[in-house]
Amino acid sequence: MRITALSGGIGGARFIRGLLRHLAPRRNESGVAAHEVSVIGNTADDISLFGLRVCPDLDTLMYTLGAGIDDARGWGRSDEGWRAKEELAAYGAEPGWFGLGDRDLATHIVRTQLLAAGHPLSSVTARLCARWRPGVRLLPMSDDRIETHIVIADPEEPTGRRTVHFQEYWVRMQAAVPALEVIPVGIATSVPAPGVLDAIADTDLVLLPPSNPVVSIGTILGVPGIRDAVARTRAPVVGLSPIVRGAPVRGMADAVLAAIGVDSSAAAVAAHYGSRSAGGILDGWLVDEADTAAVQVVEGLGIACRAVPLLMHDVATTAAMAGEALAMAGRIRA
Amino acid sequence: MRITALSGGIGGARFIRGLLRHLAPRRNESGVAAHEVSVIGNTADDISLFGLRVCPDLDTLMYTLGAGIDDARGWGRSDEGWRAKEELAAYGAEPGWFGLGDRDLATHIVRTQLLAAGHPLSSVTARLCARWRPGVRLLPMSDDRIETHIVIADPEEPTGRRTVHFQEYWVRMQAAVPALEVIPVGIATSVPAPGVLDAIADTDLVLLPPSNPVVSIGTILGVPGIRDAVARTRAPVVGLSPIVRGAPVRGMADAVLAAIGVDSSAAAVAAHYGSRSAGGILDGWLVDEADTAAVQVVEGLGIACRAVPLLMHDVATTAAMAGEALAMAGRIRA
Repeated sequence: MRITALSGGIGGARFIRGLLRHLAPRRNESGVAAHEVSVIGNTADDISLFGLRVCPDLDTLMYTLGAGIDDARGWGRSDEGWRAKEELAAYGAEPGWFGLGDRDLATHIVRTQLLAAGHPLSSVTARLCARWRPGVRLLPMSDDRIETHIVIADPEEPTGRRTVHFQEYWVRMQAAVPALEVIPVGIATSVPAPGVLDAIADTDLVLLPPSNPVVSIGTILGVPGIRDAVARTRAPVVGLSPIVRGAPVRGMADAVLAAIGVDSSAAAVAAHYGSRSAGGILDGWLVDEADTAAVQVVEGLGIACRAVPLLMHDVATTAAMAGEALAMAGRIRA
Repeated sequence: MRITALSGGIGGARFIRGLLRHLAPRRNESGVAAHEVSVIGNTADDISLFGLRVCPDLDTLMYTLGAGIDDARGWGRSDEGWRAKEELAAYGAEPGWFGLGDRDLATHIVRTQLLAAGHPLSSVTARLCARWRPGVRLLPMSDDRIETHIVIADPEEPTGRRTVHFQEYWVRMQAAVPALEVIPVGIATSVPAPGVLDAIADTDLVLLPPSNPVVSIGTILGVPGIRDAVARTRAPVVGLSPIVRGAPVRGMADAVLAAIGVDSSAAAVAAHYGSRSAGGILDGWLVDEADTAAVQVVEGLGIACRAVPLLMHDVATTAAMAGEALAMAGRIRA
């Protein structure tokens, strides 16, 4: 089976690790994996720091699936050191609020050098993955530069508003002030990276992991052509709610959901994506067992829905979640 | 007193640290240092690695004088880590033979970013030194890119010769094959960095530390205008032999001396620099006490010469060496 997932960072990466665990025993007789998984990674929270190109979501996917992640932190490398960061701070280099570990730095150095040599991000990502062997084909959503910016209130500005880079909002400000607007700069003129549209069209299942519906899945869908491809693929499209009991499982998705006028609930996010039968992108939606009440609401939208455990306590529970998503796809297909 | 030194990396840096120790007690009544030391650093062994601009001699000077050096190794940072290097190797990034430590990396990242923003190397060096407070004014010999290349024999090439970057010759090949030619690429069209010519003209003493006469002091003197400024300054010019008992005290100076047809001896290096009275640049020359026989030869060239201990065992013995150089300058001036 061919599976294509659209993914942000930590949540998406952990889900896909669970998916691979779920699929692992299912190999054909010659021991070759019976499944091909493509992951279209969000690149709209990419940022240039200290002259280096940093792709947080692609790296989190690569490290998580390549067994290089710091699992407790959820991002960055295991056995990480912080000497370079200490020195950058001693030099007064800005920004001081973004943590680049010593091992992680090497990834950004290699990427930056390859990009400077003219390789597109998709090729660079393939080169980096040649080392990490993540077990999936990892595709950036686009080779074009797209960077999400967030508009926040600032009474000191003449307009009363100020725009900050998504990373500054997320990492430095911890999304502690309301996001008034989410602007993925560069997205309107971007094109999907090579292979992205085909991975959506020629697949047996499209999965939306429990990633941020606005600044992760939302920006991927915002690249011209991608939402259309998801809406038109012959494969079923099944998503997993990142919202449990009215709050994001991880991260601060509620802060950016409010900016686009979507309630922080499993049903509201499903309604935001919409039913494929009504011009949206979802055939199926999994909500957490704590949100059983949402099932009927979501099914009322024309989206198959089931309540199952959606907390990714460990790889085994996450694999079970992936199994539920595959089972739902099977029912939709039948 | 104003002192200006022309310096390479390890040997020069250690000598200047000794000089500062020698000068330290000599402060005026208000506690202000009674001496101003300018150091013109060699930049011809600079290299771009992994997209980062590395200035080994400037960094060795900065770290040594700013108490950040790994003293045992002589180069790079104390309390250094090598995680980024490990990762670069795991990615197969070339070259693998140049060791960039995690702390050291931050210096190159900051420098590269400032250079990319349009700041000349001299300004960038001043910015880096604002942190290190090396106790000297550190000036790169030039803001222009100059990189020494070494011609070596290679029977596999149609010409029988091959040209490698100085760092490849020095670090990877350990100068184990003869250098046929030394080519400081870019030097002919370079100009001295701001302040360099003034630091030589308006000073009370010019010192040539025991640095490499070819690829360190030689390249500094090769920047158009610098040799002339040294030849014409009203200050005495005193050098210290990097060759003791016919061999370099440290490094592999003999390999590159042979390339320019100079014997590996304290007297031959003095003759190579030449007496100022005969169009050269030296007024005085210190040789090691093991090379007493050289004194008469050097004095025969019209260069004041004395044999004193020239092995830099520690900062105290190095300070004594610096004291000998200052004493010789005093005798020349008198």
